[in-house]
Amino acid sequence: MSKKVLILPGDGIGPEIVREARRVLESVNSQFDLGIELEEQLVGGAAIDATGKPLPDETLAAARAADAILLGAVGGPKWDSIPDFSIRPEKGLLGIRSALGLFGNLRPAILYPQLAHASSLKPEVVSGLDILIVRELTGGIYFGQPRGVREKEGGIREGFNTYVYDENEIRRIGRVAFEAARARNKRLCSVDKANVLEVTVLWREIMTELAKEYPDVELSHMYVDNAAMQLVRAPKQFDVMVTGNMFGDILSDAAAMLTGSIGMLPSASLDESGKGMYEPCHGSAPDIAGQGIANPLATILSVAMMLRYSLDAGEAADKIEAAVSRVLDQNLRTADIMSVGMNRVSTSEMGDAVLAAL
Amino acid sequence: MSKKVLILPGDGIGPEIVREARRVLESVNSQFDLGIELEEQLVGGAAIDATGKPLPDETLAAARAADAILLGAVGGPKWDSIPDFSIRPEKGLLGIRSALGLFGNLRPAILYPQLAHASSLKPEVVSGLDILIVRELTGGIYFGQPRGVREKEGGIREGFNTYVYDENEIRRIGRVAFEAARARNKRLCSVDKANVLEVTVLWREIMTELAKEYPDVELSHMYVDNAAMQLVRAPKQFDVMVTGNMFGDILSDAAAMLTGSIGMLPSASLDESGKGMYEPCHGSAPDIAGQGIANPLATILSVAMMLRYSLDAGEAADKIEAAVSRVLDQNLRTADIMSVGMNRVSTSEMGDAVLAAL
Ligand SMILES: CC(C)[C@H](C(=O)O)[C@@H](O)C(=O)O
Ligand SMILES: CC(C)[C@H](C(=O)O)[C@@H](O)C(=O)O
Repeated sequence: MSKKVLILPGDGIGPEIVREARRVLESVNSQFDLGIELEEQLVGGAAIDATGKPLPDETLAAARAADAILLGAVGGPKWDSIPDFSIRPEKGLLGIRSALGLFGNLRPAILYPQLAHASSLKPEVVSGLDILIVRELTGGIYFGQPRGVREKEGGIREGFNTYVYDENEIRRIGRVAFEAARARNKRLCSVDKANVLEVTVLWREIMTELAKEYPDVELSHMYVDNAAMQLVRAPKQFDVMVTGNMFGDILSDAAAMLTGSIGMLPSASLDESGKGMYEPCHGSAPDIAGQGIANPLATILSVAMMLRYSLDAGEAADKIEAAVSRVLDQNLRTADIMSVGMNRVSTSEMGDAVLAAL
Repeated sequence: MSKKVLILPGDGIGPEIVREARRVLESVNSQFDLGIELEEQLVGGAAIDATGKPLPDETLAAARAADAILLGAVGGPKWDSIPDFSIRPEKGLLGIRSALGLFGNLRPAILYPQLAHASSLKPEVVSGLDILIVRELTGGIYFGQPRGVREKEGGIREGFNTYVYDENEIRRIGRVAFEAARARNKRLCSVDKANVLEVTVLWREIMTELAKEYPDVELSHMYVDNAAMQLVRAPKQFDVMVTGNMFGDILSDAAAMLTGSIGMLPSASLDESGKGMYEPCHGSAPDIAGQGIANPLATILSVAMMLRYSLDAGEAADKIEAAVSRVLDQNLRTADIMSVGMNRVSTSEMGDAVLAAL
């Protein structure tokens, strides 16, 4: 049975890194006879330029039809000054997440032993780091209504957004997190601001309830400000963390940066059935776009996650991950992870090396 | 003319650390003949235990009458399970901030050279660190209405909060930040999530407008997820950062923890006229409360900030800061900042040492 994968290169370094990841996917597709069909569409700024919309209908239709989606990145200064807030590159990404119900965002923060020196933290604080952040991705303040800018008395403008979660949304992401913790080291830390925000009082209550169904998983709760501190102070205390959309955005980026090599970190955004969108944790990096120096490994590792979670091809995923580890052992480094004594390679040379290692 | 200072020990380690800070304040009060009158009241969990309310009327009246307030910390597990959300220790703190209009929260993250090793970051990444985070403290999602937990169709509960800022609130905190940047290295980074949240689109617009009044200050904008990453990656790129209440809560704690010595960091919360509440950046640390091992220096340094910002006694402030530096040079350390070869002291011994150095 054939499987469909939609490829969305997006903006900035997106097309460059996705090109290499696509080659890797094509290679395992034929090696393992996976029968994957590839299609490519526009999203984000690239789609705005071509069609006036960040998420064209063809793209959304192709996303619905696909078994999995590989995304590069969206956004850049070119589109930052578009006055209409509904026509922003980011709306393409948010639109797909929402339309497809990709509520479960898995963001691993793993330190590759070969890149231990790249971290800004002391080696003893981060060596062996392996955290998984589970972020709710289709609710919370990102999508809450009402929202906008309105005029108050006297013509004073006021901007407003709504942070909202219902029990079912919380329970759904909670289960993803408990299951993930069960498959790892059985410790789950739920992050909220239950001393100030009512919506997170409900969050904490539901997580506590769910814990009864997972007696083998040890649940703890932490306020978001403390969680940010603890990630800096002693990140290895965490196994799995679960939190809402906005806190997850902030904490997962902080956690990723602890490794010093955010160019290595993939992510998955899953719906209830396991269909998903896969993308690197880093953004579109417009400052280095088009120079052929971006690191394609996070996107290549996103392909591995895709094979494992959405395409039932764990063996192919293992092979890609082993190939990535091999190129690191060969001392090949893109600029972002370069260090003394290593061999600096371009985006496509890194792709070549992974293909050769496959 | 006499000045009134209200002392609010609060919960956890609050009473222990405030006791030492009070002795320091009394000492400079007589040395410099400042004519400060001290009064003490209950707040937070201690006030709930005694009166049933986290912010008793006498406390609020005393806070209004005071020229400045010194707070220890509030909160602890003892009060976490109170079902009525309006009776939480934190409501005492939030109530004072709001009632007194203490909208301008100044949170310095400074690395003391004597404590450079305490950081979990590499020395070259943090040595000489000196950032000021300006956090809006009486608006945003902390105070936005509507808020609560309601039932939807089918009896499903939904929690909700409102993130709201009007132009005037943004302009007011913006000015505090631009002024602070002007008095420092003239670089201000405004942190928002303008690619997703309308309220922060307005935030960015007003900050950009204000920049015209401060041509000598270089304004930049950063998304909050990137700001969290940049604080971990290269914190010395920042001079002053300005952001809303919730993002400021998270980022200021992360920034403080970069120093590894959060027990050293004071904070100020100011109204339009310069009246303020002063408190350590760290919390009530219930796990070590009552053991006499907490670090009183952040609270003592909060007294220095109070003298400088609210009591027009800069000389006394300088003297306290010099005394704190001296006790560090004398190798005296509380448990939280202890390292090999130093002399470990208790909370009160640290207070004694500062008094002796005065
Ligand atoms: C681009 C942006 C809308 C997005 C988000 O905030 O979710 C990004 O930061 C991410 O984390 O995937
Ligand atoms: C105790 C809590 C309500 C408070 C806050 O979130 O503002 C604290 O974390 C702080 O930063 O002062």
